[in-house]
Amino acid sequence: MEQTIGALLTDTISHIVETDKESMGAVRRRVDNLTKPPGSLGSLEEMVIRLAGIQRTEMPVMDKKAVVVMCGDHGVVEEGVSAFPSEVTGLMMGNFTRGGAAINVFSRRMGAEVIVVDVGSKAQRLPGVRDEKIKSGTENMAQGPAMTRDEAIRAIEIGIGIMKELAAQGYKAVALGDMGIGNTTPSAALTAAITGRPVDELTGKGTGIDEVKRRAKADIIERSLSVNGIGKHWRSTLEPLDILACVGGLEIAGLVGVILGAAAHKMAVIVDGVIAGAAALLAYEICPQAISYMFASHLSEEPAHKAALSYLELSPVLHLQMRLGEGSGAVLMFPLLEASVAMLNEMATFDELGL
Amino acid sequence: MEQTIGALLTDTISHIVETDKESMGAVRRRVDNLTKPPGSLGSLEEMVIRLAGIQRTEMPVMDKKAVVVMCGDHGVVEEGVSAFPSEVTGLMMGNFTRGGAAINVFSRRMGAEVIVVDVGSKAQRLPGVRDEKIKSGTENMAQGPAMTRDEAIRAIEIGIGIMKELAAQGYKAVALGDMGIGNTTPSAALTAAITGRPVDELTGKGTGIDEVKRRAKADIIERSLSVNGIGKHWRSTLEPLDILACVGGLEIAGLVGVILGAAAHKMAVIVDGVIAGAAALLAYEICPQAISYMFASHLSEEPAHKAALSYLELSPVLHLQMRLGEGSGAVLMFPLLEASVAMLNEMATFDELGL
Repeated sequence: MEQTIGALLTDTISHIVETDKESMGAVRRRVDNLTKPPGSLGSLEEMVIRLAGIQRTEMPVMDKKAVVVMCGDHGVVEEGVSAFPSEVTGLMMGNFTRGGAAINVFSRRMGAEVIVVDVGSKAQRLPGVRDEKIKSGTENMAQGPAMTRDEAIRAIEIGIGIMKELAAQGYKAVALGDMGIGNTTPSAALTAAITGRPVDELTGKGTGIDEVKRRAKADIIERSLSVNGIGKHWRSTLEPLDILACVGGLEIAGLVGVILGAAAHKMAVIVDGVIAGAAALLAYEICPQAISYMFASHLSEEPAHKAALSYLELSPVLHLQMRLGEGSGAVLMFPLLEASVAMLNEMATFDELGL
Repeated sequence: MEQTIGALLTDTISHIVETDKESMGAVRRRVDNLTKPPGSLGSLEEMVIRLAGIQRTEMPVMDKKAVVVMCGDHGVVEEGVSAFPSEVTGLMMGNFTRGGAAINVFSRRMGAEVIVVDVGSKAQRLPGVRDEKIKSGTENMAQGPAMTRDEAIRAIEIGIGIMKELAAQGYKAVALGDMGIGNTTPSAALTAAITGRPVDELTGKGTGIDEVKRRAKADIIERSLSVNGIGKHWRSTLEPLDILACVGGLEIAGLVGVILGAAAHKMAVIVDGVIAGAAALLAYEICPQAISYMFASHLSEEPAHKAALSYLELSPVLHLQMRLGEGSGAVLMFPLLEASVAMLNEMATFDELGL
């Protein structure tokens, strides 16, 4: 059977290129002449150098930035994997539209736009939420595929489409946000499938289940992988798009699209916690070059997150013991990226100091 | 011989009290009712709860903030412990006054005032630098005490005096900054003396010496501790003030005063890297209660910093591989403290959400 990929997705992947080594070299030389011992600003130096490579300029900027909060529900919630019912997804989406959630509060402080997208929740249409619903929640992945390959591709292409719009409006960076009761379960499943690490090690307590329920959740994840024919050596049998369709989520697929779309449009992507981390894994497997556009923000308490970042060789700069999602950790990284740009633009050089 | 302490220092210590448990309890209850799973904002929750305890109010604020950059030179530089000559201390102080150093750039972005204090540099008077010079650099601690106990107390009291002024002006938080070529050497010596950890493990490459020079630096530190009669079990023989005088620095003593003064005036103290970490150790030994007012910002590449934070049981939230000093890592924490306050003030509660 021929495997379709989707015209927009195919085109997007073809536009993801290596970061610009010339701009990076020029910025590195300037950074090394700033009034500080070489390398002493550590990750901040690497940030601005990579931003230069992403934006393909010696004068990178970090002014317009957004967080895209992809929302979706999960059929697997009927297995009892979450401390909250699916209705909370819609309630929180309403909270986002009223500006009362953590992601709203942090984004206001950081000067980031919040874009809420319903790519697959069970909630009704809400003013202030972009309606891109593919279906009202995934199927129960413990009994079969969460969605079809075509649905996964459509969700990815929604993310890509949004990034095309943001790029046209001059946005330079996007944080990955998510809302979806139950979504640590598909995230752990995807992370297990891609990294090959044991499910039990990757299964966390999500929004707050106890150890007994956590073990039951690990069993559900094992069953989901097994029912969908995903073994440790998935590469030999399935494409990443199929993995995503079988044990993923609509909002996770949407975030895969945000990552690929951002990379294609030369924008920095700030990875949040375990849901965004799973999306980052899939984006990387679909297009390895996309990794150059990703920045890890915080290290989540969810164990699958550490495994995902380690697989991607990304180092989180914030250690805040957070496990909320919504993009709440990712937007907290914006001040650091801005500081790295300010360092480049505003610090004196050793020449100016007379040294 | 009677051990003098200093009237202002004694008075300051007597005003350092426990954080207010009632305010902390009230804020914790509100934080637990915000629209997020309990505990899911991790360190940010702990930050705002502690700010409430420090400010003794259920409505903590984080508006006026400063970084105090204490400057001093070090006699031990004549032993070849640093990659840069002592003149660079003065050149960088000039850089601070022109706004071209990393601490200026980051503080502008974070909205923090930069206060540069010459407590013991070899530099001339500089407009824009507060002149509180006790002497032009310490003595060579590898040959005897770096300063007298009286000089150490005077330097501490300078820090206390500045905090009294900042408190009167309504400042709510202070970041610890430093400038002093050679000052990772006394910092490692102080950390060894207080924590009892091996000198070689605590000795780093400072502004950029090679491994051969690093080992020579460790030998100088061992000799300094030995010459000054400081063994691993210093508690039985010397007071912390004597340790500070023997193997410390004037800017480090100044920072001890900033910490104690901030705590006495109910202000949060943001600990920077290895120099600030050494000052934090001394402040803690002089007045253990001061620990409740300290926040660890970043984890420095200098090995003594990790040992100091571990001894103080403080967890750094920023992992940026920095090793610059100046308070550059500390001011980068302000957006996180501000986000924690915004979380408390602006997030919706579950009651409001109808859950």
